[in-house]
This record gives sequence, C-alpha cells and structure tokens, in this order.
Amino acid sequence: MRVVTFKQGNRPPLTGVLRAERVYDLSEYGFRSTLELIEGGADALKRIHSFASSMMSYALDEIHLLAPILRPPRIFAVGLNYREHAAESKMTVQAVPTVFMKLSSSVTGPDSEVILPKNSAKPDYEAELAVVIGKPGYRIAARDWEQHVFGYTILNDVSARDVQLATSQWTLGKSFPTFTPLGPAVVTRDELVDPHVLDIHLAIDGEVLQSSNTRDLIFRIPQLIEYISSLTPLEAGDIISTGTPQGVGLGRTPQRWLRDKEEMVITIAGLGELRNRTRAEV
Amino acid sequence: MRVVTFKQGNRPPLTGVLRAERVYDLSEYGFRSTLELIEGGADALKRIHSFASSMMSYALDEIHLLAPILRPPRIFAVGLNYREHAAESKMTVQAVPTVFMKLSSSVTGPDSEVILPKNSAKPDYEAELAVVIGKPGYRIAARDWEQHVFGYTILNDVSARDVQLATSQWTLGKSFPTFTPLGPAVVTRDELVDPHVLDIHLAIDGEVLQSSNTRDLIFRIPQLIEYISSLTPLEAGDIISTGTPQGVGLGRTPQRWLRDKEEMVITIAGLGELRNRTRAEV
Repeated sequence: MRVVTFKQGNRPPLTGVLRAERVYDLSEYGFRSTLELIEGGADALKRIHSFASSMMSYALDEIHLLAPILRPPRIFAVGLNYREHAAESKMTVQAVPTVFMKLSSSVTGPDSEVILPKNSAKPDYEAELAVVIGKPGYRIAARDWEQHVFGYTILNDVSARDVQLATSQWTLGKSFPTFTPLGPAVVTRDELVDPHVLDIHLAIDGEVLQSSNTRDLIFRIPQLIEYISSLTPLEAGDIISTGTPQGVGLGRTPQRWLRDKEEMVITIAGLGELRNRTRAEV
Repeated sequence: MRVVTFKQGNRPPLTGVLRAERVYDLSEYGFRSTLELIEGGADALKRIHSFASSMMSYALDEIHLLAPILRPPRIFAVGLNYREHAAESKMTVQAVPTVFMKLSSSVTGPDSEVILPKNSAKPDYEAELAVVIGKPGYRIAARDWEQHVFGYTILNDVSARDVQLATSQWTLGKSFPTFTPLGPAVVTRDELVDPHVLDIHLAIDGEVLQSSNTRDLIFRIPQLIEYISSLTPLEAGDIISTGTPQGVGLGRTPQRWLRDKEEMVITIAGLGELRNRTRAEV
C-alpha cells in the first residue's frame, strides 16, 4: 500500500492511499492523519483493506500531494553511510553510525519548492532511502527490525554546506525550511521485499548526479534500528534516513551548488519519484 | 512568576504558579499545559495575574513537581560556550555557536532520577542556563531578542561521553531517557532583570564541581536567538540551553563519571535549585 497525505480543495490535509493513479480518501474512516494511521499499527492497516472497495477517490490532478507525514516526531539522519560518499566528503567511517537530526519543521512535500536561503552560498542535495518506524521500541534487537518498520519513502537531505560545516554539528545547516522533501508516498513494508537491493538515483534537470544501490549501505537498516534504539526509544512515525551515496555537490570537482529554478528528481526502485524545484530566496 | 507543571494525586499533569512555597493551580482557568500558557503570550500572563487571588493552591509537599515543559517542541543546546570549558574539552571555539539538539524524549523533572544507562561507561553532568522561547520568529534581530523570551530555567545536559564522542555528532549521546532534567520552574523574563550576571553552580553530594557566572558566556542570548532563528524558525516552548561552564567530569584530572546514587544539585541565582539523583540501570 502507498500511503499519502494530500490536499483537496480548501479542506485540511487528508490521509489517503495511492493506487493506480488515484488517491483514495481515508478521512471518512476516522484516520485524521497519516501519523494516526501509523500509530494504529496492524489493526489500522487491516481496517483500510476492508474499506478499500467503498472509498471515495480522486484523480491525481484533482488533488495536491503533501509530505506523507507532515511533521514526523523526529528525523534521524545517518551520515557517511556509503563508502564512496564518505571518501568524497573526506571523512572517516566510524565503528558505529554517525547519526544527526534534521528538524521536522524542515519537511516539505513532493512537487513543492525547496527555498535556497539567502544566508547560504552552498546549498546541496542528498538522495536517501528513508525508513518510517511503525511499532515503537527501546533496545530493539537487529533480528527484530522488520516488525518495527511501517514502510519506506524517499528523502532529500538538502544541506547548506557552509552552515553545516561552520561548526562540528550538522543539524542546523540541514534544517532550513523546505530542506527535507519527503515522499511521494510511504510504501508499506509488505510491498518491498528487500530494501537493501534498490537502485537509487538523483538527477538535476535531466543530468544524473547520483546513481547507486542500497546494497552499498555500510550500516544496514537492522543495524541502524538496533543502534539508535539502544540509545533512545523509537516512536511511531519517526524517520530514519539511511544516508546518501556518492555524487553530491560537495564531493564533485569542481564543487556544484544548487541554483535557482533547478529541478531535482530522486528515484528509488519501488518507491517512485520525489521531484522538487529550487527557488532562491530574495 | 514561576510557572510549574505538577502532579496532584491521580490527575493528569497540571500547570501552576509557584509562589511562597505554594503551587497555585491554573487548570481551572483553562490552561491545560504550560506549553499552552506559553503559546498564549502576554494575554495569557495577564489573565493569570487577574486570577491570582482566587486560585486553588497546594503546599509543595502535597504535590510532585514535573519538568515545567513536559515535552518542549525542540531543545537547542549550545556547545563550547564558556571559554574555559572549551579548553578543558580540548575543542576550539568557532566563529558561530556550535548548536546541537537534545531530544525532548530525554526530559525529566526536578527531584526525579537520572538513569545511568548500562551501555555507557562515561555519564557526565553539565549545568546550564536554559532560555524558554515565547513568541515564535524567523530571522529575529539580536536587538529584538527579549520580546521572544518567555522565561528561564535550569537544564542539566547529562551526557554519555563515550556515546557522544564515538562519532562527530553529539545528539544521541545526550538524549538517553532522563538525560535532560529541567526545572524546577520557568521564571518569566520580567522577574530576571539580567540573565547575563547569574551565578551558576553544580555540586554532587555537596562537593562543588562547577562554579561560574553567566557573564562568561561567549555567545550571549541575543546572539544565540539571532543565529538559530537565522536558520530555522523558533517556536513557542522551544528551549535554548546556553552551554555549560568548566568543571565537567570529562575535563577533570582524573576524569570523573557519574556513579549510582549520587545527588546532583544545580543552582542558578534567581532560578532556584534543580536536584536529581542518579540510578544505575541494571
């Protein structure tokens, strides 16, 4: 199932299911947000399946997709999780994952603008596979990882390199408003047989700049869930973004920064396309 | 005014005002949480003043104080903001503040236990002055800082040094459950003439280990508000913890880690005492 959040007319954001180019409205079945659906666990998913035939639906051009989770409780992001990207960043891979936060206030949806802030001269892109936590847990064993995953989506870890690297701590340089495009849908885990074999690409205006496969992840999803949850309890709706492969602007020769009116398209096999245009703040 | 959150009998957490050793219950006046009161701005504070004479009140031994804000939207914490602490940590002060997050799930209240997790051998303390944001804002000018401050409180930035320093990113090592004692009250800004002249101390079982004054802050509150809000909008209830002075366990010779059943007491002039006992996880 592909869970989405969408805007239809003047109504507040709605939760829906995307199927064959139509969006089925879950709001009349009592799900007021995608987060509430995720918190509902397996029972909530079962209820949706039973409603499926009777749901009101819209064509994609009648609605506007928003980020599938408008404001995730937390976004844990993993740095340096593809070996070639660590090398291009001139940073060392540690014995444990390098985890930082992206603020949830930076989330934006598919097909929406990424604002390049006037106080950064080095905005950059990062294509990432993101895991959405379903069942909460503290000290989760790696072997139990899958029962804590609700699904997967695409995340663009937009980064203002000058702000990010002005100090040792990366969060603020990665948390400007609109710096976390998310979507287009959360694909539930039953639809993705193996998240560790997915082609991942990022192109700008048609030029492919990142091209890799999630089999190259250094710390895989079971290890990430075990490690993070050994330190802090994971909550329903939390996102773990697994890190970006090589090819970011920071690592290119010459370096390449995002410019006004470019279109970034991230594709991950089975998860669709996350498409966002840039706009320079004036 | 000293705003608190408290537990009385079996009722859900209540919001109150602490005055002359009694806690006045604000819940019957429609404030369901301290965060709601903060979001209410100047009008909400005015309403409280007009209720003052008629409020139901409790002696301190009839109630249990909780963290004044149970789950702040975000906790921005500043590293290396006292020169001697930067030196003892063998780190360099940068041209801009070093800002990391502490997860709100790590907040605990006064007189509650700090759990020393079994997967850290180096738990440490950090006494800090914390600023509570009232009026939200993006790109706040330093000269306007004060109108965005709701008040001040004490924060203990408990840190598992081995986890914190295992990678470059500090958040997870500072976000175990109970690693952010907060309180006892949020003192509204009108009660504190100048937050940059406050004695700050931390003692463990009576031994003074940190002793400084907020006049030694490198980046002062106006600069912190201007810097952070130049990157991400500040929200009502956000906390900015201004950093710790010298004397933490990491910087001592020999290094000194928190042990089971110690009592940490942080005192900041005008803000009271924040007292927490440690308990080793088994």
